[in-house]
Amino acid sequence: MSLNPKNALNFSGGPGALPEVVLNQVQQSIINVPEVGLSILGISHRSAWFEAVVRETEDNIRKLLNLPDDFHILFLQGGATQQFSQVPMTMLRGKKHAAEYLDTGYWSRKVVTEAMREGPVKVVWSGESDGYRRLPTEEELTFSPDAPYIHYVSNETVEGLQFNRVLGHDHVPRVCDMSSDFLSKPCEADKFSLIYAHAQKNIGPAGVTIVLIRDSVVQNGTKDLPAFLDYRRQIEAHSNLNTPPVFAIYVVLLVTRWLLNDIGGVEKMGEINRVKADLLFSILDNSDDFYHSWAAPEHRSDMNVAFTLPTKEIEAAFFEETRAADFSGLEGHRAIGGVRASIYNALSVSSVEKLAGFMQDFQRRHRK
Amino acid sequence: MSLNPKNALNFSGGPGALPEVVLNQVQQSIINVPEVGLSILGISHRSAWFEAVVRETEDNIRKLLNLPDDFHILFLQGGATQQFSQVPMTMLRGKKHAAEYLDTGYWSRKVVTEAMREGPVKVVWSGESDGYRRLPTEEELTFSPDAPYIHYVSNETVEGLQFNRVLGHDHVPRVCDMSSDFLSKPCEADKFSLIYAHAQKNIGPAGVTIVLIRDSVVQNGTKDLPAFLDYRRQIEAHSNLNTPPVFAIYVVLLVTRWLLNDIGGVEKMGEINRVKADLLFSILDNSDDFYHSWAAPEHRSDMNVAFTLPTKEIEAAFFEETRAADFSGLEGHRAIGGVRASIYNALSVSSVEKLAGFMQDFQRRHRK
Repeated sequence: MSLNPKNALNFSGGPGALPEVVLNQVQQSIINVPEVGLSILGISHRSAWFEAVVRETEDNIRKLLNLPDDFHILFLQGGATQQFSQVPMTMLRGKKHAAEYLDTGYWSRKVVTEAMREGPVKVVWSGESDGYRRLPTEEELTFSPDAPYIHYVSNETVEGLQFNRVLGHDHVPRVCDMSSDFLSKPCEADKFSLIYAHAQKNIGPAGVTIVLIRDSVVQNGTKDLPAFLDYRRQIEAHSNLNTPPVFAIYVVLLVTRWLLNDIGGVEKMGEINRVKADLLFSILDNSDDFYHSWAAPEHRSDMNVAFTLPTKEIEAAFFEETRAADFSGLEGHRAIGGVRASIYNALSVSSVEKLAGFMQDFQRRHRK
Repeated sequence: MSLNPKNALNFSGGPGALPEVVLNQVQQSIINVPEVGLSILGISHRSAWFEAVVRETEDNIRKLLNLPDDFHILFLQGGATQQFSQVPMTMLRGKKHAAEYLDTGYWSRKVVTEAMREGPVKVVWSGESDGYRRLPTEEELTFSPDAPYIHYVSNETVEGLQFNRVLGHDHVPRVCDMSSDFLSKPCEADKFSLIYAHAQKNIGPAGVTIVLIRDSVVQNGTKDLPAFLDYRRQIEAHSNLNTPPVFAIYVVLLVTRWLLNDIGGVEKMGEINRVKADLLFSILDNSDDFYHSWAAPEHRSDMNVAFTLPTKEIEAAFFEETRAADFSGLEGHRAIGGVRASIYNALSVSSVEKLAGFMQDFQRRHRK
């Protein structure tokens, strides 16, 4: 029996819901981590136990993504936002040719701003003129062979836009912000040079960011950065250069165990996520535009389903009635408003079915 | 009745023990924050509830330290280590005169290394030649009136050395790393321009760092830093520039409530901490040097009591017997070895009495 059934109906854009089985283990750990006999909040980051936590979490991510051996895995602080700067500090400072960035939504706009502080940046495509409602087609993209790297955001959380292909060419390093779809499906990690993702969508609480980085990037990177911004130093220290966010990393470990053992890997997770997204897409598509999708159908995200309702009054009723039915987190991002159902890994098919059922019923009652 | 009595005997140097009453509330919050009805790990950092958490935590710190109004309070990621760089990035870049740093132990050595990347640094005193077993007297210190600021570490966690006075002159800004004694006693905050402290000693879990910074420092600081390293941007965003470590900040809130309501403020906390330290000091001082203090008696820390035993064999027996008696975290820092009893705020007088009693008994049994 669930200790708090409302957690299963939390459609928040992030920090997002976590699996109930994980929450139960986390709750136990606050008083007593079974293997240690102490609260997780008072265990030394230099303990053998915590070293094993970091190692197992790395191993699990390696296994889940079938990661090539030349990738290092880091658990850092500062969110994806720190990576917006740390990536160009490492890969762009002092470079003559521009790094090529895609501007596909709220988050990639922020990435571009920070990158431009560090070196030459070219925006190769922008969705601004289309109001960030679609992604570029293959024909719209031309990349330079001389760019130090290309950068894009695999899933735009705010607008609910997601790439279903890998961009760019194999001879230019690919860097990708996968914050909102990391470990939600297979990602062809071997095609990338650097992948980063904060934890608070699919894999843990806010406060830790996962960076997968190829050894070649580290070897060729800027050498004179402050220690905490230097990937090399963080790699040498096994993410333990200074006190890491012990608790957040431990939760990530529990989530990766759940993905491996309870779900059965990211391929299976991707199938489940597809089922969930299709459930909501079909409500939208069969609603006679009562539920109006923000994103063009061909670029809709399996993670964030953003839509609007016919009037502000109906939207207000939607929020009121969903709250009364114990749903939460459905308010759209302040940048675009409307409704957003975020259906990250921890949202079960049955939770999404409940929302889909509610939406059908709501439409019947509120259709003009 | 305690759910896990071992937490009360955790003398770890950090992440350190937290008060049992706080742990119990944290445990509840993992499944259900009463005011919200959701897991703390799935609550949006943009929610009204979390904004109130940040505001109350700020207010509590303001109240506890009687902080002048021109101080801003920030909750940042990256640990004190990020501040080692962020402080000189803000206050030292492009300056002609050297910032003046004190080198009093393991941690201040690290601070100096990072500061030197950003601008001119002068080490005005070093404890290296004395093996970092004492702090400077007032007569040994001369500060320049032209320094952009002075920097020191109020409590050296590794060696157990603590200043019991404020250094420097009022016309040169004082910057202080108070990571290991913040909120353990009154600190004359009004004499400082910038104070920083990570949470994981006295005030919360690893993953959040508190920065108290005067408005004048922000106004005069470097203007072209990446957003996440720019105090101004963080202040404007009320520590919510990008997703902050929601969980860690919530725990800090609970600890500040405990300090205000259960303990009765930092003056009272300081008195309790003094009683605890005196208990252990008196064991050391009356042990005929069986327990040999690392630090000179006049500079010993109320937070970290570091000492050695007559032989490696006796030390090994000490660790074995303390573990068997459910004490933990007593191993000295890898940099200097020996024993270290960290007696942060959450360690009760009765826990320290238990350790003191054990130490007397141990000495009786192991004295040659």
